[in-house]
Amino acid sequence: MKNILLASTSKLHGTAYLEYLLPELEQLFSGVSELIFIPFARPGGLSHSQYTKIAAKAFKALNIKLKGLHTFNDPIQALQEAQGVFTGGGNTFLLVTQLYKLKLMQALRETVLNGAPYLGSSAGSNICGPTMQTTNDMPIIHPPSFKTLGVVPFNINPHYQDPESNSKHMGETRATRINEFHTINTIPVIGLREGSWIRVKENEIVLKGALTARIFKAGQNAYEIDSGAPLEDLS
Amino acid sequence: MKNILLASTSKLHGTAYLEYLLPELEQLFSGVSELIFIPFARPGGLSHSQYTKIAAKAFKALNIKLKGLHTFNDPIQALQEAQGVFTGGGNTFLLVTQLYKLKLMQALRETVLNGAPYLGSSAGSNICGPTMQTTNDMPIIHPPSFKTLGVVPFNINPHYQDPESNSKHMGETRATRINEFHTINTIPVIGLREGSWIRVKENEIVLKGALTARIFKAGQNAYEIDSGAPLEDLS
Repeated sequence: MKNILLASTSKLHGTAYLEYLLPELEQLFSGVSELIFIPFARPGGLSHSQYTKIAAKAFKALNIKLKGLHTFNDPIQALQEAQGVFTGGGNTFLLVTQLYKLKLMQALRETVLNGAPYLGSSAGSNICGPTMQTTNDMPIIHPPSFKTLGVVPFNINPHYQDPESNSKHMGETRATRINEFHTINTIPVIGLREGSWIRVKENEIVLKGALTARIFKAGQNAYEIDSGAPLEDLS
Repeated sequence: MKNILLASTSKLHGTAYLEYLLPELEQLFSGVSELIFIPFARPGGLSHSQYTKIAAKAFKALNIKLKGLHTFNDPIQALQEAQGVFTGGGNTFLLVTQLYKLKLMQALRETVLNGAPYLGSSAGSNICGPTMQTTNDMPIIHPPSFKTLGVVPFNINPHYQDPESNSKHMGETRATRINEFHTINTIPVIGLREGSWIRVKENEIVLKGALTARIFKAGQNAYEIDSGAPLEDLS
């Protein structure tokens, strides 16, 4: 019953918030009049209400009302009764810490598994894998665990970037970092470039958007997959 | 009694491991015949002994023998008796997890505070701040705490990179990430570019190398400081 869209980014360069995804979101949220927005990742330190306002503006075009999860007295109940959920990007450590603090991880997982349409972008996509361990974010707060929703069987690295061939920088490339993850973990990882998204419908998981994505598995060479490729057997 | 050198990187592009620092290391480790090497950050998944071999090779030029901390039956005692210590770069989460697992954080702190010369590069520098929260690394393992040695009064962001003005990438810049850290933390942060290092002698802390460094403080605009600038009043 899953109905999920996981985007690498909420914004493409030079376009408005969620603009490039609107046709997809119309389909994902068809029949939905109100969405729960999870603002806990607070990009750039935005307050929960500031962030909810930005997201709400994008959904006006779809005639969908957004309510921030921080405004509910009983956020667990709010998730249980949600017509749909959108978790915005920002800092994954902050998002995950807040979900654990409010004991929402399990409720959110059940909502998604019960079929409520779910949109994630960046950190909001990252938490749909078994763990948040392939985030690009700084550990600005210490979550009790890195375990996340596990509604897809692989981890996501959003905003994936290829190594720059002429770089003289000695810091690790994104690929090096993901390979380090695989020296002590076996969960497959999808490097999801900006403009790509993952669409989950029931048991089907498909790469969407114009670009290829990069697949990393423990003990194997990374490889590219085309848009349209199935992802359900990645694990 | 502190005698510390914290480098942004172990390698500059096109040079050998630690090569650019050799004149400084000769001074830092003058009179030292044997060093303890802490290989726990395991860059690229190198084994402890592989990594120790690489580091040992660089120290041959200084006639200093390196012994990996992993080879001691009693690593706490090894640190207590160390003539000097070098912690190499790699994954900071792995390094910190291992230090906590073996209960070495306090012993290492005391060794450094008692005046044993200490060299850190990248992750090995990162752990000298109050917390490891401004690392660039992926959270490939869950440490019990992000608290680290606190032998300097600020956090370090190694391999600091300036934002690229023409980038169309929507992922956060390094500066944005550090600013997110400051939305919920007050520890000052030094963005240490490759080729820069911090030299601590007793109570003096100075930026060294040819480049400027970038200082981030909570609630203030970031600013540049010149090589030679004192850092002890940064906190």
